[in-house]
Amino acid sequence: MTSNQKRVAIIGAGPSGLAQLRAFESAQKKGKNIPEIVCYERQADWGGIWNYTWRTGTDDMGEPVHCSMYRYLWSNGPKECLEFADYSFDEHFGKPIASYPPREVILDYIRGRLAKSNFREKIKFRTPVRWVSFDKQKNLFLVTVEDLVNKKTYTEEFNYIVNACGHFHTPNVPEFEGLATFGGRVMHAHDFRDALEFKGKDILIVGTSYSSEDIASQCYKYGCKSITISYRTAAMNYHWPENFEQVPLLVKAEQDNTVHFSDGTQKKVDAIILCTGYLHHFPFLSKDLKLETTNRLWPLNLYKGIFWEDNPKLIYLGMQDQFYTFNMFDAQAWYARDFILDKINLPSKNEMSKHSMQWREREEKLKNDEEKIWFQGDYVKELIDETDYPSFDIEGVNKTFMEWEHHKHEDIMGFRNNSYKSLITGKMSPKHHTPWIDELDDSKKAYLK
Amino acid sequence: MTSNQKRVAIIGAGPSGLAQLRAFESAQKKGKNIPEIVCYERQADWGGIWNYTWRTGTDDMGEPVHCSMYRYLWSNGPKECLEFADYSFDEHFGKPIASYPPREVILDYIRGRLAKSNFREKIKFRTPVRWVSFDKQKNLFLVTVEDLVNKKTYTEEFNYIVNACGHFHTPNVPEFEGLATFGGRVMHAHDFRDALEFKGKDILIVGTSYSSEDIASQCYKYGCKSITISYRTAAMNYHWPENFEQVPLLVKAEQDNTVHFSDGTQKKVDAIILCTGYLHHFPFLSKDLKLETTNRLWPLNLYKGIFWEDNPKLIYLGMQDQFYTFNMFDAQAWYARDFILDKINLPSKNEMSKHSMQWREREEKLKNDEEKIWFQGDYVKELIDETDYPSFDIEGVNKTFMEWEHHKHEDIMGFRNNSYKSLITGKMSPKHHTPWIDELDDSKKAYLK
Repeated sequence: MTSNQKRVAIIGAGPSGLAQLRAFESAQKKGKNIPEIVCYERQADWGGIWNYTWRTGTDDMGEPVHCSMYRYLWSNGPKECLEFADYSFDEHFGKPIASYPPREVILDYIRGRLAKSNFREKIKFRTPVRWVSFDKQKNLFLVTVEDLVNKKTYTEEFNYIVNACGHFHTPNVPEFEGLATFGGRVMHAHDFRDALEFKGKDILIVGTSYSSEDIASQCYKYGCKSITISYRTAAMNYHWPENFEQVPLLVKAEQDNTVHFSDGTQKKVDAIILCTGYLHHFPFLSKDLKLETTNRLWPLNLYKGIFWEDNPKLIYLGMQDQFYTFNMFDAQAWYARDFILDKINLPSKNEMSKHSMQWREREEKLKNDEEKIWFQGDYVKELIDETDYPSFDIEGVNKTFMEWEHHKHEDIMGFRNNSYKSLITGKMSPKHHTPWIDELDDSKKAYLK
Repeated sequence: MTSNQKRVAIIGAGPSGLAQLRAFESAQKKGKNIPEIVCYERQADWGGIWNYTWRTGTDDMGEPVHCSMYRYLWSNGPKECLEFADYSFDEHFGKPIASYPPREVILDYIRGRLAKSNFREKIKFRTPVRWVSFDKQKNLFLVTVEDLVNKKTYTEEFNYIVNACGHFHTPNVPEFEGLATFGGRVMHAHDFRDALEFKGKDILIVGTSYSSEDIASQCYKYGCKSITISYRTAAMNYHWPENFEQVPLLVKAEQDNTVHFSDGTQKKVDAIILCTGYLHHFPFLSKDLKLETTNRLWPLNLYKGIFWEDNPKLIYLGMQDQFYTFNMFDAQAWYARDFILDKINLPSKNEMSKHSMQWREREEKLKNDEEKIWFQGDYVKELIDETDYPSFDIEGVNKTFMEWEHHKHEDIMGFRNNSYKSLITGKMSPKHHTPWIDELDDSKKAYLK
């Protein structure tokens, strides 16, 4: 360390990392001294998984592709549930827009909030983090990175680490008997790019979470012949179109394209799309710093959902399963910032664990989506009550989520035609000019016209 | 270090890593003391890229998939050109077999050489190397790894590193205009798994090296409708079947599946397969240890093709572009072993560089495959002349490569029906029971029947 100034490393310049940068920008605007910040990003631009690429597997530099998005993706929840409290959609676009924007519009919004600041300069692009360890003697984190463009590797010391690399970039791909010799195509949702590739095809989707319902809907919209959805526990409770079928778990795939299910039924399909979720994958973290969790609303060992209890100068953003997204990352980032700025003190490790266990106990009793949404809303509220992040109507957001769930169950292919009221501006969003099912162009230009 | 014993880390248990283990096993059998050896392998089994998996992208643990092979792959060169000098095919299979075995047969052969020893115990499977650096004060390498099964990370010290992780596992994927919106499928050869997926399809293959000629031939064999091969410099000089066309470089792909070439021609294709090679990709090596090279016969900075001239206790195996493969890795591994066992001394850095530059100068003058084969044969000869690796008829191998080239130019879909004489046993290989074009089953069972 060349000075007494604190140094903060942010890993990732996606929605969470940008929330952390914004939190510090906001403090700086209010006259606070902020620490030295370095944000390491493996991609060439900011925006995280919202950066679309046609690539799958590894990128042009050999790094794993971060993007899990696909062409024609529209937000699967109302934008009113994720709106930044300090930067409304109206402010960004200069006019009201409809409630379910496509990917490019959301990306534009995320990027826009920091575009007028000089905080982009704090981001080292194309610089994957290779290894992070904690030096007990120095009481500092050692961060080793690779600058892919300038072909350098180097290690720097930091007082704080904000791990904002996300947990929807590394697919969870289970084995099923016969996949090695199945005659058709097998892919994970992470590698799904274009529904048109499946036009006229019979596809099998494995899984029943968001990737599954959205990719199924995409494939329907773009002309799939039939869609079979295989569930482990229970079928999805939507009114699917006629060429949909829900079946129990896949047990075997065969070379002649036959797939077998646990109820003894079988059919032939052209492709299997595994919508089986993602791994919390941090190959750059030493064991003592590494969060290990399934995708759930309350991972353990994170006080207030963010502080690594064993070493709270390591902060994790956005590691929860998510109803709340951008505004939750904001709530977390503002809270983390105030800890780094010494405005918030943390209790003893014992008290942190106890607090976390209370949340976990409540989480384990949640019975349905409605309860889960209120749970996560309460969590967000707990955070923003203690910082200067602009307060907003969390109960209103919760209720918008309820409406969204209701609209989905009413019409899974039409729910995106609905509009909701902004909890930030108080204004009702306009109805979109074209029903989702009829709009094949997902460009920003087409959406904003 | 807990003792005075030398410690050697081998990175990778594929053909090169197993050659290094075999070299030490051989010395041990002859009564030599060998150092403590730890081999780190990210896959669950030995065999490197010869381990087939249906997976693409990342594996079940989130690690990049190493395998670049596909179903129905047969050796694209005569087995007589890669036969181990200390373990013949006849010895392994107990009977003579034909000259172009499918993948599973080759894998069985590679694994068989070490199967009777206890050297498998030296391999830490599912243990990717995360970071390697050199500690100048300790004069030791620090190797940080992650044990994925036991969820541990740890760092160990070594006197020597043998980087045997290969250079055909991370694809080189260039950008072409329009790929992001191309209407069909886009993939790199690394992710190609099953030619049957392209049955009845029009495909475009970009590139003219081994992946290109082999995937094109595979797709033809398994019923592709048409195959277009796009070249940068020159078309491949084979007698392709009627549904083949060779065109100059791809310049643009369009949403309606039209692809445009640099001569102004265009056509519609269902899929684009990028056979554009691989990167030397070592994300776990610090800059001062990292080989940076294109795929060529004489990468610089490696004395004798293996010793990192800046720090020769770091040894690279198999980093050359390859005509010679398994037997070259053996020649390198035996040489590396004798350096580690202090039987071979290295000259000054200056002399090492000078020697390397002589090879490079010769490499740069090579005009055709024939000259390249003799060049690499001479290199192998230089190595084996100085160790106890069993000498073998390198001129004979070179001539077998010439025959192979001749057979390919005579009949690209029939060259695998030829037989060659083993340079190890002196015996002629039998003719295979079924012509390659008619044999759709690539299993070991079918091949050896």
